[in-house]
Amino acid sequence: MSNQPDEITVALLGGGTVGQQVVQQLTAHAGDFAARVGVPLRLTGVAVRDTSLQRTGIDDSLLTADAQALAASGADLVIEVMGGIEPARTLILAAMRAGSSVITANKALVAADGATLYATAEECGVDLYFEAAVAGAIPLIRPLRESLAGDRVSKVMGIVNGTTNFILSQMDESGADYAVALAQAQQLGYAEADPTADVGGHDAAAKAAILAELAFHTRVTMDQVSCEGIEEVTAADVDAAREMGFVIKLLAVAERATGASGEEGVIVRVHPTMVPREHPLASVRDAFNAVFIEADAAGEIMLYGRGAGGQPTASAVLGDVIAAARNRFAGSRGPGESIYAKLPVLPSSLALTRYYVNMEVSDKPGVLAAIAQAFADHGVSIQVVRQDGHGDEAGLIVRSHLAEAGALQQTVEYLRGQDFVKSILGVMRVEGEAGQ
Amino acid sequence: MSNQPDEITVALLGGGTVGQQVVQQLTAHAGDFAARVGVPLRLTGVAVRDTSLQRTGIDDSLLTADAQALAASGADLVIEVMGGIEPARTLILAAMRAGSSVITANKALVAADGATLYATAEECGVDLYFEAAVAGAIPLIRPLRESLAGDRVSKVMGIVNGTTNFILSQMDESGADYAVALAQAQQLGYAEADPTADVGGHDAAAKAAILAELAFHTRVTMDQVSCEGIEEVTAADVDAAREMGFVIKLLAVAERATGASGEEGVIVRVHPTMVPREHPLASVRDAFNAVFIEADAAGEIMLYGRGAGGQPTASAVLGDVIAAARNRFAGSRGPGESIYAKLPVLPSSLALTRYYVNMEVSDKPGVLAAIAQAFADHGVSIQVVRQDGHGDEAGLIVRSHLAEAGALQQTVEYLRGQDFVKSILGVMRVEGEAGQ
Repeated sequence: MSNQPDEITVALLGGGTVGQQVVQQLTAHAGDFAARVGVPLRLTGVAVRDTSLQRTGIDDSLLTADAQALAASGADLVIEVMGGIEPARTLILAAMRAGSSVITANKALVAADGATLYATAEECGVDLYFEAAVAGAIPLIRPLRESLAGDRVSKVMGIVNGTTNFILSQMDESGADYAVALAQAQQLGYAEADPTADVGGHDAAAKAAILAELAFHTRVTMDQVSCEGIEEVTAADVDAAREMGFVIKLLAVAERATGASGEEGVIVRVHPTMVPREHPLASVRDAFNAVFIEADAAGEIMLYGRGAGGQPTASAVLGDVIAAARNRFAGSRGPGESIYAKLPVLPSSLALTRYYVNMEVSDKPGVLAAIAQAFADHGVSIQVVRQDGHGDEAGLIVRSHLAEAGALQQTVEYLRGQDFVKSILGVMRVEGEAGQ
Repeated sequence: MSNQPDEITVALLGGGTVGQQVVQQLTAHAGDFAARVGVPLRLTGVAVRDTSLQRTGIDDSLLTADAQALAASGADLVIEVMGGIEPARTLILAAMRAGSSVITANKALVAADGATLYATAEECGVDLYFEAAVAGAIPLIRPLRESLAGDRVSKVMGIVNGTTNFILSQMDESGADYAVALAQAQQLGYAEADPTADVGGHDAAAKAAILAELAFHTRVTMDQVSCEGIEEVTAADVDAAREMGFVIKLLAVAERATGASGEEGVIVRVHPTMVPREHPLASVRDAFNAVFIEADAAGEIMLYGRGAGGQPTASAVLGDVIAAARNRFAGSRGPGESIYAKLPVLPSSLALTRYYVNMEVSDKPGVLAAIAQAFADHGVSIQVVRQDGHGDEAGLIVRSHLAEAGALQQTVEYLRGQDFVKSILGVMRVEGEAGQ
């Protein structure tokens, strides 16, 4: 017992919304935290860019502009909630080298260079926790790397970006076009002035890489994630989805797949997706997040909650703080990186999914037969067809059975070249149907 | 490093459905498990009642009828999947005294005598894990006691019994009466020949006690849980719920509440409940389970999945096995009992909820006014009234604002004594409405 500390010191890098919430919770529930850890937590400093700004709930005397010194001060725990790759990366590595366990909410950094963070934590004998990096307050990292550690995950599908889910929910509910829904999201503060990182799927791709690594014990970096945003989703796609009993979601999908030579691998992709309305992910509206996990023994699991915001993110950070503090108190360590499986990350063109294809065709005899033949010739089997004539032209929607992206792409290219096809209005993957 | 074991030995008590699944998974994924723990797991024996029975996937030479000897054999880990209070309790305590960490799926035992199990684990310096005891494969115990350790949980509402959820889903979908739906559940194997433990709410109450203890850091035993089953739910209740946009679920609810003298306490209750159809719990159908958690910072979280069955239960057991094995390998320990808050467990009559009251009244002028007055006189505020005349009598449904159980009960008693009230058809709590 003589080695046990009589307090756990905590240094905080970042005094923005999340940082202020972290301090407020640490202060308000200090007694609870002390009881849960075994000794009190003591905040030793908060590194901010401008120490002259008022920060709600943070004692002025704790503020410092010298993040480097605070990071390297040897606190038991260092919390990083600044965001961005640098200087966060340098500060975290300095903290670990000074013997501090690190808790971070930085998805961009973990996705871009998790390997260095893990390796340095291992080398320095400290903990690295990052529950807040994916889907805010939803317990997700811990269930994946601990609760499901005795199972074999086959697929993870997540709504992990609140901005795009809000826009798509608006389009579904009001029939608004993408531009209108985006403007509304910006007005309400759900989307930034430059929304590229969200609507382009890049934020979701970073989270997908993190989830894939945890689920499949294989290192996945962000550049290995195939990424398509929601900018091309039209009101017509949303209408077509609704009529078929589907809803469009931006999904981050990570799954086991078979490579060209029969080898087992992993595919990680982010794209707009048609999901049946009865699927649990379909009812995840607005800025909520959810992750749906399929595992061999557990079956289907869904974890749902608030994916962003100061308070939910602070909740996730503080859960990690308690875990790291308990480890510090007990002289033990939490789980390290687990990438023993080393599966190849396969191109998303090998992913087998169903597809929706929406086109405008000539309303003449024989056209449907020709189109059906085109799908068959390319090895794509049709599941459902909906034809809707209006004058000389007809709207034609095809939903396929499981098909390879390559085969579907070739079918669409072929159809685009035929004179009875006026235009291809939309092509989208379908996930979550029973028996898929 | 010299203290680290070169294998982790595992003894299994129970060779039924769950036990067989545990062995099959341990065998099929032995390489994964070794990589995740750091050393291989080795099964040293399986205690069964009848060693002459064939057990799928279990090597005959591992079977033993001497559970006591196997439990006390000093294996690193002992898994208990026999169920029931005795001999499970005696065997688990013997295992701990022999230095084994224990993983159990035994909700009845944990709810009835968790205190002794925790205390013995503490005394012997071993781990106690029981993720499988509540809601099968859904990661629930670990999120509650670790992910949310930095937050303050205010309420937990769970669908934690698959049998009753299947019966209520059937009644909702087909309009069947309770007896018919129960018979169907029995025929399909979802309900036992004697369904009392499930339909009476006792199984859910055991799980509610476990969840309440974890959420509120307060010891809660099963006899402190107010428990009402689904036997009295009628097709008329289900119809009324549907017409109002609600669905009936058997909920296990644990919440912070205020006692008669203003003291903070906890209320734990299990009862049929009307839930709005747009609430995430409403779409949890058939034998699925889900737990909805409200926490100060995290906001609303829902964890959803398969709550029972051999494979899902085995998944949860094996997640705990990996955790306990990693601790054993690292010479560390997992979380112990956390009951520092020691909140009083208050009577459920103090719970503030909305209510649904369905009655048959005389269809005469002044009756509605008299009924409204009766509610007002007892301090129960009315939110919604639906009247439906048919001849001399009228169906009248009242939904109240938040009210104490005692006040509502007195209102109903008073109404029962009035001659313009022909009968009280149903009284049920309402949960999950916005702003509640």
